[in-house]
Parts: sequence; C-alpha cells; structure tokens
Amino acid sequence: MSPRTERPATASLEHLLRLFTVPETADSTLARIEQALSANLAGFLGDHVVASARSLADIEADFADTRLPEAPTFVSDQAEFLLDKVVAESVHTAAPGFVGHMTTALPYFMLPLTKLLTGLNQNLVKTETSKAFTPLERQVLGMLHRLVYGRDDAFYAARLHDPGHALGAFGSGGTVANLTALWVARNRAFPAGDGFAGIARAGFAAALRHHDCAGAVILASARGHYSLAKAADLLGLGRDQLVAVASDRDDRVRPDAVAAAGRAWQARGYRVLAIVGVAGTTETGRVDPLAALAEVAADHATHFHVDAAWGGPTLFSPRYRNLLAGIERADSVTLDAHKQLYVPLGCGIALFRDPQALNAVEHHAAYVIRAGSRDLGSRTLEGSRPGLALLVHSGLRVFGRQGYALLIERGIELARDFAARIAAAPDFELITAPELNILTYRYAPAWWQAAWRAADPAGRARLDAGLNEVTVTLQRCQRARGLSFVSRTTLAFDDRPEPVTVFRVVLANPLTTPAILDAMLDEQRALAAASPAAEQLAALRAQAGPAA
Amino acid sequence: MSPRTERPATASLEHLLRLFTVPETADSTLARIEQALSANLAGFLGDHVVASARSLADIEADFADTRLPEAPTFVSDQAEFLLDKVVAESVHTAAPGFVGHMTTALPYFMLPLTKLLTGLNQNLVKTETSKAFTPLERQVLGMLHRLVYGRDDAFYAARLHDPGHALGAFGSGGTVANLTALWVARNRAFPAGDGFAGIARAGFAAALRHHDCAGAVILASARGHYSLAKAADLLGLGRDQLVAVASDRDDRVRPDAVAAAGRAWQARGYRVLAIVGVAGTTETGRVDPLAALAEVAADHATHFHVDAAWGGPTLFSPRYRNLLAGIERADSVTLDAHKQLYVPLGCGIALFRDPQALNAVEHHAAYVIRAGSRDLGSRTLEGSRPGLALLVHSGLRVFGRQGYALLIERGIELARDFAARIAAAPDFELITAPELNILTYRYAPAWWQAAWRAADPAGRARLDAGLNEVTVTLQRCQRARGLSFVSRTTLAFDDRPEPVTVFRVVLANPLTTPAILDAMLDEQRALAAASPAAEQLAALRAQAGPAA
Repeated sequence: MSPRTERPATASLEHLLRLFTVPETADSTLARIEQALSANLAGFLGDHVVASARSLADIEADFADTRLPEAPTFVSDQAEFLLDKVVAESVHTAAPGFVGHMTTALPYFMLPLTKLLTGLNQNLVKTETSKAFTPLERQVLGMLHRLVYGRDDAFYAARLHDPGHALGAFGSGGTVANLTALWVARNRAFPAGDGFAGIARAGFAAALRHHDCAGAVILASARGHYSLAKAADLLGLGRDQLVAVASDRDDRVRPDAVAAAGRAWQARGYRVLAIVGVAGTTETGRVDPLAALAEVAADHATHFHVDAAWGGPTLFSPRYRNLLAGIERADSVTLDAHKQLYVPLGCGIALFRDPQALNAVEHHAAYVIRAGSRDLGSRTLEGSRPGLALLVHSGLRVFGRQGYALLIERGIELARDFAARIAAAPDFELITAPELNILTYRYAPAWWQAAWRAADPAGRARLDAGLNEVTVTLQRCQRARGLSFVSRTTLAFDDRPEPVTVFRVVLANPLTTPAILDAMLDEQRALAAASPAAEQLAALRAQAGPAA
Repeated sequence: MSPRTERPATASLEHLLRLFTVPETADSTLARIEQALSANLAGFLGDHVVASARSLADIEADFADTRLPEAPTFVSDQAEFLLDKVVAESVHTAAPGFVGHMTTALPYFMLPLTKLLTGLNQNLVKTETSKAFTPLERQVLGMLHRLVYGRDDAFYAARLHDPGHALGAFGSGGTVANLTALWVARNRAFPAGDGFAGIARAGFAAALRHHDCAGAVILASARGHYSLAKAADLLGLGRDQLVAVASDRDDRVRPDAVAAAGRAWQARGYRVLAIVGVAGTTETGRVDPLAALAEVAADHATHFHVDAAWGGPTLFSPRYRNLLAGIERADSVTLDAHKQLYVPLGCGIALFRDPQALNAVEHHAAYVIRAGSRDLGSRTLEGSRPGLALLVHSGLRVFGRQGYALLIERGIELARDFAARIAAAPDFELITAPELNILTYRYAPAWWQAAWRAADPAGRARLDAGLNEVTVTLQRCQRARGLSFVSRTTLAFDDRPEPVTVFRVVLANPLTTPAILDAMLDEQRALAAASPAAEQLAALRAQAGPAA
C-alpha cells in the first residue's frame, strides 16, 4: 500500500466521513509514530533533552503562516510535518537528564489509556455524557481525600456518591485547583444574611459593605506559587492583597509573621480570607510549618488552604509523610496529578475537608447540572472536562500506595545525596538544601568564594551580581547544548545583600541516577571553562583583585 | 506469553522502573484495547448509546471503596477492570444516534495524535518545556484570529511571534475562555491612574471607589451560557450583576433591550463591563444580532464579547458565515475546539481583536514566564497546560477550510430538514427552529394540541404542565433504553403561560443521517404509547375533557 491510504485530499463529504470511520492503516505515518512510541518510549526522542540546536526564532519561521489551509491535507502529510517540525523540535521532558522542571517521565500505560480516553471522549460535566466516569471520579476524590484527611469508612460511605456532597473538584491543574479553593474561601467568608444575598450573588463591594470590612487579604509565603496572585486578581481582591509573608532562612514561612500580618490587617479593618501554606514550594521544594499555620488560621477563624500541588504525594510515604504534618487540618488542599502522580498534563485536584464547602460555588442550568443531579459540573470551575480521573485511578491502582511511596522516597534521597555532593565540591555552592526533592545551587569557583569572604559589603554585592550573570549564561549554554537541563530562578534572602540567581533541580524522574547528575556537574564545569561564561568569569576575577 | 507480562505486582523499585521504560506487549489487554479502537473506531462501543441498562446507583457500587490500594496491581488487571466497569458503562458520545449534547464523533487521527501528545507531554506554560509547541500554538491562534477578524499578512507578521503581543489564549474549554475574556474586560474597564494601581492590583472595591462607580454589570442574553454567571461570581461582580436581557421570540437577545438596560444601569452609577453576544446558544443554537450588539457596545464604550464556543466554526462556510456578521467587531471571541473543530476535550480559545488586550492580565514569576520571554504562560489563566494546539493545527490542516465548511453546512441543513419533518408531523411540535444545527421539539399528540387550542389560560397552563412531565418521562425512558439520546431543557417564552420542557437535539455528528432521526421519532412515538409516559398521557387526556 502507498503511504497515502487516506484517499486524495479533496473536500468531499465522502472523504470527510471516512475520517470519522476509517481507522489508521498499518503502514501510515501515524501508525509508525505509534509503533515507535510503543517500542521505545524512553528513547523515542533520542538522548538529547532538546533534539536540535535550532533557535526558537528559526523554528518560528516554520509556523509563520496565518492563512487558513483551504483544501484538506493528507493525514500522512500532516503526520510527516508534525514529526519533522514539531516532534523533532520538542523538549524531551521525560529524559533522565531533564531535571529542571516538574514535567517528568510517564509510565507507559498512560499512553494507551490516553488514547482510550480520546476514543471514549466522555464529558465529565454531566452523567449523560460520562455515566461510569462520574462515580469513578468521585471514588478517586474519595481516595485522595482519605490520603489527606484519613476519615473512616462511615464518613465516606455516607458522602462519596451523594449529590449534596463533594469531597473535591477536578480541574485542569494546580492553578484551577488553587483558584477553586480560594473562590470557596471567599464565598464562605462573606455569606448571605440579613438583606445581603452573599458575595456570590451580590459581589465583592457589597460584601465588604455588608460585613463592614475595608478589604480582604490572603496571607501566604513569599515563595507561594504565582497562581495565588492570579487568583487574588481574578477573585477581585487585587494582587496587592495577596500578602507575601517573610520566610525563615530555610525558606519556610514564619507562622509568627503570618499571625502578626493577620493581626495588622485585621486592625486595619480587613478580613483575612485565607491563610495559604505551601507543601513543596515551586522554586525550592520546602514545606511550610503546616501545623503551626493551622493554629494561626484557627486563631483568625479563617480558611486554611495548603498548596500541595508538588509535595502532596509525600503523604504516600510513611517515612516522610510527617513533613506534611498538619495538612489534615487544612480546609482545602491542592494536588497536581500531572506532577508526582505521573499522570499526563493537565490534571489538578482541590480537596475540601468539609464535603459541603463546594456548595459555596454551586451553580445550575436548565439543560444539565440540574439541582439534585449527580452531575459533577455543578461544583467545578470548569464546564466540559475530559475524564482524566481514569488516569489517576489507574496510577493509584498500578503503583499502589507502596509504589508511590518508593518513588517519593527515591526522589528525596537522590536529592539529599546530590546536595551532599554539591556541598562537598569546592567549585559549587548549595543554595537551598532539599527538604523534598528540589534543590538549588550554583557554580562558584573557589577563587570566587575566597574573594567573597574577603570582600566588604559593596564588594560582595558586586561579586554576587557578577556571578548571577555567569549563572544565567551557564544555564542558557547548558540548555542550548541539549544534553541535560536545569532551570534557573532568582532567590532573595534576608542575610544576603543581593538576590541570588541559582540552578534549580527537580528530582522526580525515576530514571535519573546519581551518575547522570555527576555528569551534569562535570558538564557545567566544562561550560564554565569554555563557554561565554568563561569570559565573564575571567573579567569578574580580574575585577575582584588579589583575593581571587 | 501470558497476559501478565508486566511482572508480579510487588512494589519493588525494579518493577516500578519497568513501568517507565517497558512498552506494552502485543498480547496485553491494553494493546487489545488499542487494536479494537483502531480496527473499529465507530463501532468500538457497539450500537447502543449507553451499552448497559445498569443504573447509576448500581454502577456506584463498583466505585465505593475509598481505601487506597496498598500494593501494586497488574496493568493487565487494571485494563480488564476498566473494560468491564468503565468502558462498558460509558456513554457512546460518538454514536450517530447520540444527538442530545455537543459531544460528538472524532476523526480517527485524533486518537494516535493524543497518544503522541502524551508521549511528548509538553508543558505549554513555558518554552523550556514546549519549544516548537509554543510557535505552533501561536500560529493556530493566528489562523483562528484570521478566521474571525480577517486582518492582513502584515498585521500578523508583526505580531504573531512577538512576546509583547498575544492574539489569544488557549484554555481547557469555553468556561476558561469566557472567564479570560471577561477578566480582561474587567481589568481594562478599571485601569490604573492617579494613585490607583488598577483593579488587578488594588481590587474591585478600590476600583469602584477610584472610578466613582456604584458597581459593575455584564449584559447578556438570558440564553447565555451558565459559565457567564460563574465568571460574574469569580470576578467579584456577583451573579446578580450578570444582567439577563430578554430575547425575542426567535431567542435572540434584543439590542434595544440591551441598550435600555445599559442606560438604566449607567444611570444608577454602574459601569457596563461588557456586553456579551452569543453565537450559538447552548440550548437552542441561536445567534444574537452581533452587528447591532457591536453598535450598542460602541455607544456604551464597553467591551464586546462574543461567546461563539458553539457557532464559531460557522465562519468556515461562505454559505452561512453571514449569520455571524458583526463578530469581527467583537473585542474578544470564545471558540471551543472540542466542539465543532472535532478535537477531544478539553480545548477552548479566547481570541482578542487587540493583540495587547491580554496584557491586562499579564503576570510573571522568577523561574518561568519572565518578562520579555516567549513563554505563553504569562497571559493564560491556567499555568501548566498540555499541547492541544497540535490537535487544532491538525484539524485545520486535515479538514482544511473547505472540509470544516462542508461539515457545518451538512449539520445546518440536516437540522432544517429534521425541523421540517417535525413540523409536518401531527404528533410532534417544533418549539425552536434551528438557525444553526440545534433545535428543540416535543411530543404533543393531536388530541393534546386540539385541547390546548380550545382551552382557557388556566386550562392551557394545566395542559402545558402535564405535557412537561410527559416530556421528562419520555426523555428518561429513551435514555434508559440506550438506542438513541436527546437531552432536555426547559425554555420560558413571553407568549406562553408556562415554561416548556423540550427535547434538545444537536446535529454535529457527521455520521447522523435523516433515517436515524426518523427512527428516533418512531421510537419516541412508541415510548409514548407504551412507557410510563403512556399513563401520564392518558391521565392528562382524561383531565382535558371532551376537546381531547
């Protein structure tokens, strides 16, 4: 058979109907892509993190035409285009050397299951388009609720499938989950009563008037995810009312500072809508002191939300779950299944301790999600949604609690091991040690460290600023080479004169080994000796004077 | 080989690592599922819309255990479970007789492409995890922008890949797209200036104070999607400030009524944040008079948003695109790719006429989406997102404009044909004729119609209420039989004493034929003669007296 088995590309109805009924044929390009994926999932994209050295500007030229394609294209031609221009220029997020972001390898069974999901194309907004997927999603919410809150069988038996209750809400990711949680917190903070219809109906300004408040704030760590600021904007508080509270040197928010900020804002007539604790900060993987924050939230009689998008699955591990002690007191918790549950993008979950909390954002329509129905869409931020709960369900079953625990423990211990080797190296500096499986560090040659120790404050600031530029250059060069990848960020510390630009490493890929990480340190040393960073370092050393 | 090729299910690290590297084997259950999908996409779930007569309550018993699975499960066992308990009890949304909702058949190539997407697992929030997918998504936004706004090559060449501009934002569906559009509208309505930091930073109450407004409203058709009310709640306006404006008898919002409402609210000191036109109402598929609404919005100097989640692709058809005339004057437009672009759930797009409009919701972080970067995440509501733009791109290429036009035209003409046959039938009543490809009707036997004509207002109200119950029963019985499916909704009309419960039909599945629809009318007639509806009808007839 020729590779163009899909008939000539004329826009006839007959041709179009074939696209809806005729399966791919064995020799088509798409089938070859599938076979290649199936035969060698980890190696499909080769060894490189980024397979090609083409610049983004060059790639953009392949996607510059905004004219609508007029006539149909062969499926095989489109598949060839995708292979050449998209797949070849994509990022190998599953590569063991890709340790810079939270996107990691997936277990192989997620691929056929994703295809099954598309084949079924259920819409979880309502049972009429999801049937068994609705109880399945509720069961998954029950399992995850139990992981966090650990209530007993009777609690779940009475509520799991009851239309008046919801243990949580699925959404497209952590941002939607955080937004859902804070939406609930806001609506519950300004309930209806005495001529006021509640903030959901009457709006923010009327709520403040009725409840005699000057405004409302959310208190969170300065290391909180940027989605919290988006939520403050969206929900009408304003980003400035997301109060960034100082962290200690270990990057955990200070409960006393949270309490002080809460009292200060309350004294100004503001309502504290929520206190947010982070279980796994995005940049440094630290866990806020959740039990102490729960106390502060209780003192303020406010909603306690924990953003555990990253760190939540630590609860699977008996060895490390205590790091999150206090999470069970949270009113709401965000988890991201597409992170450490190893589900494809994008799948986040907001869990609520009180299974009636989501009623604060309940909504109905005449044609679906009618009052009393089992339709999940009555309490989700989104409307139409795919059935990704099936993937979470499969992850929970195939890995089991034990399996997820092993993966979590492996990541944390790999991070501790790597941190120890960075700390022991004379030419690297560990900036934030891992509490979970994220750490930050930088290349800092011995002469630089000696010069810094000998310098006065102004000299230190110059040395730090210079090294920050080197770090940016090194990260870019490493990324451009495409053999391995770390991300970078800039962290401010009370005890350092300048913010510090660092390499950021996330160790969640089960295929990443100590040897891969050691090789990466060697690669960074080599780049520091030979790339544009070498010139920056030489200039910095000359400027630093004799101590260097 | 045995069906359990994945090794015994012990939670060893070795076993877990295999899950990340070893592909499915040819004889595994998952591979058989894939083969079955590939061999017979349309017939995979059989002829039934719902494959089994088990009730939702029965199915819930299969998903009642909230205990976390402790040990790993074989992939093949999980796959068998999914086949038995989930796939067998899912809804055949692709069936040609499933004409009740907007979820429809997909072209076959979406299945392997979905698997490819999962294999790549790119994260579109930033180029470091998406590379070529970022320009690809921007190109798709350019094509869709061009479909709606039709600007010239120079316009797009200067903006398509420029980090300071965004022609639109991808999201998980129409709800996120509508919310994004109204978020932008809100933030632009209350800009910074003179000691006020803008609503995004300062919040809703401060914005009203600074701009000396009593409040803010959104004006939309009473037939607008329920996501608009959610957006009004989320954004801090309050649901009551989504002003539902009356429609004419043809279910299109009245521009004079919108203008009058706008003037009335402005006179009360309110700001009109946005006027929303609907291009394809969810329940009846009607298109608001967009050009006239654009005029009203211009008069009010307010944001004009068009929710074209359903009807947008009508623009592909030279024959029917005029139905949406005026959409090119919208400040923002919502499209759902998972509806009439035949992409799997969930993929929606908000387009903006002004490529700088999205800067009103721009945000940054230290580790990604830094200022000046090409990262798409700086102007999306969501953070981490999958690369569904690849599926939209493939749809646009494989169907071409001509192909989508043919599908749109076929649906509209099938709906008109079906409406004519309903109107001609003595025992059915067409309630809303199709403007696009959605219509509503009900079973109303000749004796009922005669009795209604002869009745006084109170008698008519009784007859309508009785027939509404019959309609609910018929819809439920038809759904339970599982051979075909219509949805139901309840529509209020100025010239009818009672709201009317109707069957709702959406004709977007290219495999649906007139013969299938005729058979469905016969099935409904048979149900009216034999199901519990027959008893309800007999009682109603007895009550109606001699005219029946």
